[in-house]
Amino acid sequence: MTDLEGIRYYLQQQRSRVDRELDLIIPPESSYPFSIHRAMRYSIFAGGKRLRSILCMESGRLLGGDEAILLRVGSSLELVHTYSLIHDDLPALDNDDLRRGKPTAHRAFGEALAILAGDALLTLAFETLTDVEHLGAECRLRLIRELARAIGTRAGMVAGQVVDLETAGEGVDAATLEFIHTAKTGAFIRAAIRMGALAAGASEDDLDRLSAFGDRIGLAFQIADDLLDVLGTQNALGKTVHKDGRQKKATYPGRHGVEESERQAGRLIAEACELLEPYAARANRLRAIARYVVARTS
Amino acid sequence: MTDLEGIRYYLQQQRSRVDRELDLIIPPESSYPFSIHRAMRYSIFAGGKRLRSILCMESGRLLGGDEAILLRVGSSLELVHTYSLIHDDLPALDNDDLRRGKPTAHRAFGEALAILAGDALLTLAFETLTDVEHLGAECRLRLIRELARAIGTRAGMVAGQVVDLETAGEGVDAATLEFIHTAKTGAFIRAAIRMGALAAGASEDDLDRLSAFGDRIGLAFQIADDLLDVLGTQNALGKTVHKDGRQKKATYPGRHGVEESERQAGRLIAEACELLEPYAARANRLRAIARYVVARTS
Repeated sequence: MTDLEGIRYYLQQQRSRVDRELDLIIPPESSYPFSIHRAMRYSIFAGGKRLRSILCMESGRLLGGDEAILLRVGSSLELVHTYSLIHDDLPALDNDDLRRGKPTAHRAFGEALAILAGDALLTLAFETLTDVEHLGAECRLRLIRELARAIGTRAGMVAGQVVDLETAGEGVDAATLEFIHTAKTGAFIRAAIRMGALAAGASEDDLDRLSAFGDRIGLAFQIADDLLDVLGTQNALGKTVHKDGRQKKATYPGRHGVEESERQAGRLIAEACELLEPYAARANRLRAIARYVVARTS
Repeated sequence: MTDLEGIRYYLQQQRSRVDRELDLIIPPESSYPFSIHRAMRYSIFAGGKRLRSILCMESGRLLGGDEAILLRVGSSLELVHTYSLIHDDLPALDNDDLRRGKPTAHRAFGEALAILAGDALLTLAFETLTDVEHLGAECRLRLIRELARAIGTRAGMVAGQVVDLETAGEGVDAATLEFIHTAKTGAFIRAAIRMGALAAGASEDDLDRLSAFGDRIGLAFQIADDLLDVLGTQNALGKTVHKDGRQKKATYPGRHGVEESERQAGRLIAEACELLEPYAARANRLRAIARYVVARTS
């Protein structure tokens, strides 16, 4: 088994654990009103990679965190990620018909239910974090604050979406492009890694180190995503490719070219792995996941 | 000054306090990205009555709660209320062009920004509750849980919206109508009152009593709102009236008639006020607000 096969197998296992946990968190389809729970589950179980959950859990494991706590905290992040995808796909935003090869939520359930399913998933994420068992109140509160800031309007996810939308169709300078990437994707990935660390009782030193690691992974992830959009095939991605190019949205390869983007992603991963030096071999799996983030083909 | 004038003056004062607090909570329009903060502020400061904040604060005052804490907690509820209005007004949902006499958020800023402004206000509400100063972590956590449940899919606000949408255009039975009202409006008003009590360190006894009070106020409020829609004028409401009738949405007067609805609202308020008996004269203002809820003309 190659290293890449090994990490793929590991990620597949972790993904199954997160999916089972999400099945416990989200009300069943038999719970009234049925349609909203069906819509929430449809989008949640549409085949996500669960990278945010896995980064969160792995960061906490590195510091000896409790498995059940990390699984619950990590899984809550997928509720937020799915909310953002559902709203992003809406006709008024990216107007996407397909996501991971399946009709997007609004195509499957109508716009009204898609908007409400997104709202409900966001709300459920916060509720889930208030209820994490065996985790102190102060810590749960800090996780909620960390999450809310990462997805808000002050350099968080919504800020990134707004600037992304408003600059579509026009050229953006390098600083604006970096703001979009950092806010739209990076802040949430950084928060996922920090939340795992916090849930494991990280020292400020650990937290600083893992935050810096998260910054680099977040940006590398977005560059890899942009590259996939340029280089990928519709088949591999299950969504319309070259869409960002058609909509003239700000992308890293669009601004810096494919080769420079690949170099930059590689550089960021190398820096991220170096930051884990003090953890020596204990951080090997986190390093492997970091490398996988840019090596992935879908 | 009549009683009604007295309570109107008091409510006006409280409303100004909440508005000033919201001005501190929401990032200024000069904060990047400008457009999202402009959209959030436009909808927040479009002239709401702040009834949820005021009920929350008054409930906490009854139990001797701290003014600054109650003001912050109460104000956070307006972020949630405004998020729900913005999303409710969207073309895919109620498709309203006017709200309180002004263009709705999506008419003023476009659908994309309206969706994101709603998302951001919801997120900011949770963030605000994590940061309430001089309030214990356990209590803040309980407030967040209380709020999340009241606006979620298990008999919370989103559940009510879903059933309301799905039954539009068809007759509903009395039980479904009550579910819609209880979930869509009642649960949140009940939570507002409970959150004020919790922030003031309520005993379980106080909490039970104020929850029962909140149940009745919530339903009476919705019946009064339905009645206003039937009896009001477009001028007084600043929104399109008889809209619920045109869309054949489930309303209390539509199902039970105007007279029976008025009787029912009166009965609920009387019951609510009786529940406050143990607090004697200390609860006079809360009683007056309860009566105002059904007496209001806009």
